[in-house]
Amino acid sequence: MRPIVALLTDFGLTDHYVGAVKGAILAACPEATVVDIAHDLPPHDVDAGSYALGAAYRAFPAGAVFLAVVDPGVGSARRAIALTAGGYRFVGPDNGVFSLVLGEHPDAIAREIVNRALFRHEVSSTFHARDIFGPVAGHLAAGWAIEDVGPPASDLVCFAEPQPREISDGVWEAEVVQVDRFGNLTTNLSRAMLDRILASIADAGELVVSVESAVLPLVAAYSDVPEGEGCALLGSSGRLEVAIHAGNASRLFGAGRGAPVRVRRVSVRLEGPVL
Amino acid sequence: MRPIVALLTDFGLTDHYVGAVKGAILAACPEATVVDIAHDLPPHDVDAGSYALGAAYRAFPAGAVFLAVVDPGVGSARRAIALTAGGYRFVGPDNGVFSLVLGEHPDAIAREIVNRALFRHEVSSTFHARDIFGPVAGHLAAGWAIEDVGPPASDLVCFAEPQPREISDGVWEAEVVQVDRFGNLTTNLSRAMLDRILASIADAGELVVSVESAVLPLVAAYSDVPEGEGCALLGSSGRLEVAIHAGNASRLFGAGRGAPVRVRRVSVRLEGPVL
Amino acid sequence: MRPIVALLTDFGLTDHYVGAVKGAILAACPEATVVDIAHDLPPHDVDAGSYALGAAYRAFPAGAVFLAVVDPGVGSARRAIALTAGGYRFVGPDNGVFSLVLGEHPDAIAREIVNRALFRHEVSSTFHARDIFGPVAGHLAAGWAIEDVGPPASDLVCFAEPQPREISDGVWEAEVVQVDRFGNLTTNLSRAMLDRILASIADAGELVVSVESAVLPLVAAYSDVPEGEGCALLGSSGRLEVAIHAGNASRLFGAGRGAPVRVRRVSVRLEGPVL
Repeated sequence: MRPIVALLTDFGLTDHYVGAVKGAILAACPEATVVDIAHDLPPHDVDAGSYALGAAYRAFPAGAVFLAVVDPGVGSARRAIALTAGGYRFVGPDNGVFSLVLGEHPDAIAREIVNRALFRHEVSSTFHARDIFGPVAGHLAAGWAIEDVGPPASDLVCFAEPQPREISDGVWEAEVVQVDRFGNLTTNLSRAMLDRILASIADAGELVVSVESAVLPLVAAYSDVPEGEGCALLGSSGRLEVAIHAGNASRLFGAGRGAPVRVRRVSVRLEGPVL
Repeated sequence: MRPIVALLTDFGLTDHYVGAVKGAILAACPEATVVDIAHDLPPHDVDAGSYALGAAYRAFPAGAVFLAVVDPGVGSARRAIALTAGGYRFVGPDNGVFSLVLGEHPDAIAREIVNRALFRHEVSSTFHARDIFGPVAGHLAAGWAIEDVGPPASDLVCFAEPQPREISDGVWEAEVVQVDRFGNLTTNLSRAMLDRILASIADAGELVVSVESAVLPLVAAYSDVPEGEGCALLGSSGRLEVAIHAGNASRLFGAGRGAPVRVRRVSVRLEGPVL
Repeated sequence: MRPIVALLTDFGLTDHYVGAVKGAILAACPEATVVDIAHDLPPHDVDAGSYALGAAYRAFPAGAVFLAVVDPGVGSARRAIALTAGGYRFVGPDNGVFSLVLGEHPDAIAREIVNRALFRHEVSSTFHARDIFGPVAGHLAAGWAIEDVGPPASDLVCFAEPQPREISDGVWEAEVVQVDRFGNLTTNLSRAMLDRILASIADAGELVVSVESAVLPLVAAYSDVPEGEGCALLGSSGRLEVAIHAGNASRLFGAGRGAPVRVRRVSVRLEGPVL
């Protein structure tokens, strides 16, 4: 199988940065299939990088190498790391961009990247994606072992996601952790927790979801409500999501990252199909 | 030859969606060359998707697989389909995104995608690009036959493009069907129709094109008029196009999709080279 | 090694153009690894194209073919050219988009592209990237020689970058040549010149950099100043760069391309680490 290197950055496509990183990967591993995950992440937004990587990596075949660079601290003392987790390898700064991956893989093995033999011949202080991370990702794809990059690393930077909680009897409060291009609001309420909540009540139809002043039915698919109407459902990342069928929930509800989303039991069923 | 999977979506590059779809394609066909056509299509704009796909696919080598996902109805009863047309294969929702391809290939063979053996192990209701379309496109690229995806499908959703018409003697009315990044206005008036119009008059120089209040000469290349001036010409998609040499016609003329564009015979020639 | 074709355009990702070019490359060389450098360059901005290409190409392995298309004069008499320089090949319009590459490689060998056998079967007047440049780049990647494209070309369009100069004793004036997505300001002051300036004074700490009304220390990395504060440093392209640590210098200083940046000797050292 040809090695895969998947690339996630906040570099945009206006500048040469993404191209230079790909050049550096291919210089180390000319046979690599280099694929873009996303490059228009908000600049310096490590949380957005962690979320996007965490939501994408499991779709790739085992063995893929992920290069994740959202790196406001480039050139500082923050470590450069490589990880092995879940059959994949990850390369990037130790600044929290791997928080979701690490949260899902407590057994991840981490190494600090210090072996200059794997770097570009000249290393700038401002573009480690080209000079360190890209070459290391390429070398890993080309067959180097993670042990070759440097010594074991522990105490990695890892931001624990805020957890939803039951704020009163039958009322759970989650929060929006990501707003996508379509305005869909992904929350931190997982499928497992939703299952537990559903199990705790007699009838799924008794649950409603509220965000700002809107009260929404819990459904199975966007199209379970008419176009332009809001709903809540289990999204593709395995989390509770708030959406408008063929519309933009973030804009309509005026809700962004951090906005509270409440799930509560009601005695009267809303109309419409339910989960 | 390595299999090619070309990807067209309205997912943008801000989120993880494009990356997850590529992962799903590569999981099904690790040897695939995955290439991006466009991802910044206006969200939910099926017409824009149909146009972009229709304008791009013929440049690819035969055998390429196209994955086109502009899918506001994901999770609803709309069908998932795979097509064989013109030596290519196409995968996506049956919602009109293949209208231009189908219009050019009345002999296209369509199958409804129902074979869950080709899907991702778990299928969400909101992200069929990752869970159904991507894996199916990958499997087709890896050698599966289109017959393997499911039974024949007929009565596909296909929007007929509005046709230009002669609204009075020597006056034809077309309309803008696409505005590109440069502000160029592509119309629905085809090369064949332009040829017929030209054949019907004595001298090509007698034709002018008008959009909003501007009257423009019909030329062979943007540079046949000075920079900053408007013109009409046969564009790269084989359609009449209105442009400003090194400028933005949509902005200058205040014209967007749906705007009428008239071609008419005049007795006095405009200055400048003509088609 | 699989051939690499790297693609730089001002086409954006809203339209089908990038996809069609990739199709044309792959039609000529199905085995190519096609990688994107950047597509969101400002429309028609040849200088931005020259800068981005010049900043990216050296990261690629030798043998890579670069396709650079920022081409406001498409369809005019401007020549189509192919270059060999520094172990790489380049294909695009002769309009200055190769200025930085040519400036670094006075021994570059250029050919005018005229061999229609290498073109797409049908050539439009508005989309040479698909009809001429893409197919030629693909054929070069597939093993054709640069001599096959056409006769030698001389007197290429090449814009000399403005050079910094010492405007008074101990004061050098450079200018901003590029603003990146993060708002970092890259100047035309090279590492070699900075070294000469540093050698001319006793202590590197005696240099400061000013842009608009801000006076900034010369440091080694963004993180040598606190977050939100400005600095100047040797950037990843080997040029003096003005930045805000984890912030946007262009926005904060109100400075864009062409803005003057002064380097001057001071008798009192600023605080903070220095280069």
